[in-house]
Amino acid sequence: MPHRAPGSTGKSRQQHLSGKPIRYYRPRGSADIHHLIDEGFQAFNAARLGEACRIFTDKMLLPEHDTTIGLTIAGALTPAGLGGCIVELMERGLVDFIISTGANLYHDLHYALNFTLHRGSPFVDDVELYEEGVIRIYDVLFPSTVLLETDLYVREFLVRSGMNGPVSTAELHYALGRDLMTRQPGCETYSVVAAAAAAGVPIYTSSPGDSSIGMNIAYHELMNDSRLMIDPNKDVNEVCAFILAGKKNGCVILGGGSPKNFYLQGQPTLWEVYGIPKGGNDYFIQITTDSVVWGGLSGATPAEAVSWGKVNPGVLPDTVVAYCDSTIAFPLFCEYVVGSEHNRRPRKELVHKRDELMARLRHEARGARRDHPAPAEAADTMPDLERHR
Amino acid sequence: MPHRAPGSTGKSRQQHLSGKPIRYYRPRGSADIHHLIDEGFQAFNAARLGEACRIFTDKMLLPEHDTTIGLTIAGALTPAGLGGCIVELMERGLVDFIISTGANLYHDLHYALNFTLHRGSPFVDDVELYEEGVIRIYDVLFPSTVLLETDLYVREFLVRSGMNGPVSTAELHYALGRDLMTRQPGCETYSVVAAAAAAGVPIYTSSPGDSSIGMNIAYHELMNDSRLMIDPNKDVNEVCAFILAGKKNGCVILGGGSPKNFYLQGQPTLWEVYGIPKGGNDYFIQITTDSVVWGGLSGATPAEAVSWGKVNPGVLPDTVVAYCDSTIAFPLFCEYVVGSEHNRRPRKELVHKRDELMARLRHEARGARRDHPAPAEAADTMPDLERHR
Amino acid sequence: MPHRAPGSTGKSRQQHLSGKPIRYYRPRGSADIHHLIDEGFQAFNAARLGEACRIFTDKMLLPEHDTTIGLTIAGALTPAGLGGCIVELMERGLVDFIISTGANLYHDLHYALNFTLHRGSPFVDDVELYEEGVIRIYDVLFPSTVLLETDLYVREFLVRSGMNGPVSTAELHYALGRDLMTRQPGCETYSVVAAAAAAGVPIYTSSPGDSSIGMNIAYHELMNDSRLMIDPNKDVNEVCAFILAGKKNGCVILGGGSPKNFYLQGQPTLWEVYGIPKGGNDYFIQITTDSVVWGGLSGATPAEAVSWGKVNPGVLPDTVVAYCDSTIAFPLFCEYVVGSEHNRRPRKELVHKRDELMARLRHEARGARRDHPAPAEAADTMPDLERHR
Amino acid sequence: MPHRAPGSTGKSRQQHLSGKPIRYYRPRGSADIHHLIDEGFQAFNAARLGEACRIFTDKMLLPEHDTTIGLTIAGALTPAGLGGCIVELMERGLVDFIISTGANLYHDLHYALNFTLHRGSPFVDDVELYEEGVIRIYDVLFPSTVLLETDLYVREFLVRSGMNGPVSTAELHYALGRDLMTRQPGCETYSVVAAAAAAGVPIYTSSPGDSSIGMNIAYHELMNDSRLMIDPNKDVNEVCAFILAGKKNGCVILGGGSPKNFYLQGQPTLWEVYGIPKGGNDYFIQITTDSVVWGGLSGATPAEAVSWGKVNPGVLPDTVVAYCDSTIAFPLFCEYVVGSEHNRRPRKELVHKRDELMARLRHEARGARRDHPAPAEAADTMPDLERHR
Repeated sequence: MPHRAPGSTGKSRQQHLSGKPIRYYRPRGSADIHHLIDEGFQAFNAARLGEACRIFTDKMLLPEHDTTIGLTIAGALTPAGLGGCIVELMERGLVDFIISTGANLYHDLHYALNFTLHRGSPFVDDVELYEEGVIRIYDVLFPSTVLLETDLYVREFLVRSGMNGPVSTAELHYALGRDLMTRQPGCETYSVVAAAAAAGVPIYTSSPGDSSIGMNIAYHELMNDSRLMIDPNKDVNEVCAFILAGKKNGCVILGGGSPKNFYLQGQPTLWEVYGIPKGGNDYFIQITTDSVVWGGLSGATPAEAVSWGKVNPGVLPDTVVAYCDSTIAFPLFCEYVVGSEHNRRPRKELVHKRDELMARLRHEARGARRDHPAPAEAADTMPDLERHR
Repeated sequence: MPHRAPGSTGKSRQQHLSGKPIRYYRPRGSADIHHLIDEGFQAFNAARLGEACRIFTDKMLLPEHDTTIGLTIAGALTPAGLGGCIVELMERGLVDFIISTGANLYHDLHYALNFTLHRGSPFVDDVELYEEGVIRIYDVLFPSTVLLETDLYVREFLVRSGMNGPVSTAELHYALGRDLMTRQPGCETYSVVAAAAAAGVPIYTSSPGDSSIGMNIAYHELMNDSRLMIDPNKDVNEVCAFILAGKKNGCVILGGGSPKNFYLQGQPTLWEVYGIPKGGNDYFIQITTDSVVWGGLSGATPAEAVSWGKVNPGVLPDTVVAYCDSTIAFPLFCEYVVGSEHNRRPRKELVHKRDELMARLRHEARGARRDHPAPAEAADTMPDLERHR
Repeated sequence: MPHRAPGSTGKSRQQHLSGKPIRYYRPRGSADIHHLIDEGFQAFNAARLGEACRIFTDKMLLPEHDTTIGLTIAGALTPAGLGGCIVELMERGLVDFIISTGANLYHDLHYALNFTLHRGSPFVDDVELYEEGVIRIYDVLFPSTVLLETDLYVREFLVRSGMNGPVSTAELHYALGRDLMTRQPGCETYSVVAAAAAAGVPIYTSSPGDSSIGMNIAYHELMNDSRLMIDPNKDVNEVCAFILAGKKNGCVILGGGSPKNFYLQGQPTLWEVYGIPKGGNDYFIQITTDSVVWGGLSGATPAEAVSWGKVNPGVLPDTVVAYCDSTIAFPLFCEYVVGSEHNRRPRKELVHKRDELMARLRHEARGARRDHPAPAEAADTMPDLERHR
Repeated sequence: MPHRAPGSTGKSRQQHLSGKPIRYYRPRGSADIHHLIDEGFQAFNAARLGEACRIFTDKMLLPEHDTTIGLTIAGALTPAGLGGCIVELMERGLVDFIISTGANLYHDLHYALNFTLHRGSPFVDDVELYEEGVIRIYDVLFPSTVLLETDLYVREFLVRSGMNGPVSTAELHYALGRDLMTRQPGCETYSVVAAAAAAGVPIYTSSPGDSSIGMNIAYHELMNDSRLMIDPNKDVNEVCAFILAGKKNGCVILGGGSPKNFYLQGQPTLWEVYGIPKGGNDYFIQITTDSVVWGGLSGATPAEAVSWGKVNPGVLPDTVVAYCDSTIAFPLFCEYVVGSEHNRRPRKELVHKRDELMARLRHEARGARRDHPAPAEAADTMPDLERHR
């Protein structure tokens, strides 16, 4: 399939969908790749990627650290076939919870339901695609019917689930994963949502309304008078509770965006809102193509996060950002990790400990409030606060 | 204040906060800037910015088009002082609804509450800042007490508001804006949240849990047993209802991220979920520093959106992306707009029409469902659907 | 003219060239733009651009500093119509020498020779353009005959000039500028090359073989047995001599690339090769869209240049990089500069002082060699030099 | 060695140089990496990198195509240890000529001369480095004495060589490589410049004055009254002659910059200047972190090159740009190539065929001039040429 055809006309839908099916690639712990990263990736972003691998394997995964590891996912990684890397990490207990854009989870459902996404090209005529009912995610192509069928599955699941009140996204995605396993037996080996349910890994979505899963829940409310809704409060408090309970905390951030921000807000929620200083993340790994020079949160450095108490000021050597497309860097990272010494850990199964850890958060926060009540008039206690009008 | 001091030590908190206070800049419709953009911005991204200005003023603002205009905001624009541009557009009726990261709204509260953010440098020692209690947003610096006081205000507002159930973010932000106007009279001239309430412009947040506003609502639930929560279903349906009601629809996207995605999902929600094809956006303007080559949604082109039905396939000439830091491009854009012919429109005051337009959405969706019921078994109607396992 | 038409066919050459002619925009010192930059550009890259403006006007242009100012140009700025900004700066004595890609000078000749470049779109069918004989520089379009006629002019100029030996690029471009003024009287107001000759500003090209000017000189050698050639040694030594003679040295770097590198090598040439430490640049302004995170020279920070002795370690506060497309940032910068207090300086006319300053460089270098002869065996004097094989 | 230490003081030179020595990594044709690229790199830039690998191995290296392959190098690849990849490709006959920034060749000399560059961090205090005599290339660190000793070697080589007139850079670098092999026997296995001489691969530099090699030639002229100089005409004509002689032409472009431009100008030199249309490149592979949206040549697409006749309009499917740091992508590419079927070709040894091929170019160009003489007055033959003043 030629990858670039500006001005081409008359290409049939069949041709657009003639690229190889995308399948979830599972890293196997290649010794060659380990060697390349250690010996060949010596400078620039190659070296940063090497640092990321070694911070993860030599520090975060050390049994004595028992690091609570959050993975955040932005960018269309499941459409690109990277779900297999995520499944592998979950199965091995190397990721304890996930914060993802809804799109990655929604598109994972296509794999779970055995629909096919195809390798394609970003240089195609979108008007033609539109007319032929072909959907494009950069260079991933698939029929629009895949959307409609997946939506239908979601809506039927919502009815089937009987859920009818506020839930956290972890609860929703767990129920979804269980349903998938029932209806597509074995799909936990080729679906992130199902594998997470199987491994007890809670999955959160920072922006619950901007994916087709959220859109179908909104439909359910508007059309079926359902009272099922995502309660972002639960998401905030559950993630906060995980971080509070972590012996050490570390993250792997793919991309940036609201999942990164949601994860990093956990520490400020503790010290700023609940009055429980936790000291910031102990480890910080990011793979992104954004850049610090644009000033946004996606490209913000671990150093900037220090001033917010998001990253422990003592650990900057244990933080790294590798600037690279995740579709290249993340499989390399996972090959290295799977091929390293501590490549399997007991699973924390946090999805089942949400209530317990939230109760602990509430308990500690109440203690903090009792010990340090909010001032009657804030300004009294903040003499250096500047007021300019 | 020197803008770059690697390795400097002993810089006191006072020095870090010695930069000029940041104030909301209000565009005034400069004829010089109009001239520069028309005559001097002839190629490359300068030309794209010029196109954006002219699409907005010559097409989107034409009275006969009555375009429903959504503004999406990602990146720290209020900390950078760009709130004044947004206030100006709202006052003039040039923006009908807003989707913003929570951070932009939270930091807007500092201005509303008369706290000071300072011009600074991105080249400072963050460990030093941390020790001195100074918060850094790229090159914007302010005391951490500003966070604590703003949080306190938010929590007191939540109690005061009496809200105790699911709300849309528009409802929350409207109540917040009204509260600000009461407690800081006149602040609608220097606060986005207050000005939006005054002008009837609903503000949505795509990721309600990842800002300090959301974090304090989570506190309210955990600590005060409040039942106030953001219901993302309402956000999805309200925005969808606005788009359905629009004679023409157009957007100005600053940055990208989940606000961009949330806005653009409106059209697919209509055709894909509700069965009401609306035809896609008629106008599309984006200012971003992301790039198409990384493949992410933030940098995705209007053309890619066509295949999803997000952008009308017939209007690609009325879409444009200018690749530039919004802190430079957006004030230029606003100066041009304010200095153009149709620089004021009757306000739509959509914040007050949410229920009415939602009812209309429900009505039309029910009609569509009646006319085109979902198939009993989806695959029957989709013969070309591929199944690969 | 629609700016985006993927897949369009049958667009005639005439339509492709129907965009407005690009003309050199001359900055006029707008007070509005001055106000916007000082009051509205408060953070992120807007603030960096503001810093750049103030470093230039408040420091580099101070009469007592008598800064020798080099301007380097990469990226297609003359095709984009930014030649007028450069002409304005030269006429006012605000730039003392220039290092440019050859392409900017070659395309400036089109303006000098009264050919027309058109505003266009980057979203056109290049195969169609190729077949119609239309040349595209991103979104600038013009007939390929413009290349052929300009080449013909260059070749005739080379014959006419009688030059027949090694020359510096400054000498070549000066002769070219004089020739243009003779044959297109008055063109020094709308041609960078001609204006530079008129103002005595020497223009260098770091990569003399990669533009059509260099290609035609190569033709002249191969086909006419000419002995005219660019001698890069002269370029290196002349620029080095300018920097040595500067009371203070400063630069404005547009883009990056080999012009940036060529300029910055001046200081190491002095200390590393000639043994005359000059202390590094005193001022450093760059406008670029490259980024530090990729590690390349184009995006390298002033700080990195310190370790090489390219930038004075004491002046980091007087260095700044604004990340922005030059087509947007440079006209804004020039408007600010022209509207500032010290907006005119006596011209240094360095093009006429090349021999004198080179003689001085040779004299000082010989003195340095006499005082500090190279060691007979280098390693003797460098005990800590590491050798690893 | 901690990779990030803002604000640290008192770090000794020894500590800065304590990172592992960087060594040239030699790709070994890993089957695992081949598998990862074919099966795991399915979308986004991972897929582009896979395409690049397959265009190279399945098309460019096909014996029947006998493609003349140019490699262009920008960005600090030899400091980063990627010289081993280049040596491997040259030894195997997979690259026929090279166009590189001077810096890559100059820093290659450090390896040839057995000096050590160290792995380090980009987050160091450059003022401290400056004071300690440590040079930084992004995150590569080495003592400044390495520069001085390398310069001394270059100057002694220049004297030793006896060259005293205009030369092409290929001739210069060939002589340098021979000298290195004489003085550092065996260094052709760990030096690009030496290996190129051994393999008969000519190396050109597009910007001969902006590296320390060029600076020392300039010294030689100024201080020793040498008449040795780079003649860019020879570089232009030699490269042009190679391209003319190529059965098919293809390139691998690392980075962009003036080497990319120099290479691509070869085709326009043929049709535009010499009147010998060659039809454009048949294959085009680029690895870069620049982006098309900034409009510059480094990020320009193969499609844009079509309008200039630089790329054959019929071959767009055989062109690809992978957006990635070369330090990551190029070793992966080389592992794939070395592990593929046609991983060795007879060497063209173009360095020895320069005179012969130039004579052929001259002959054909004279034929073209005879058959299509330049018009007496150009405009007569170009009726549609626009003149606008």
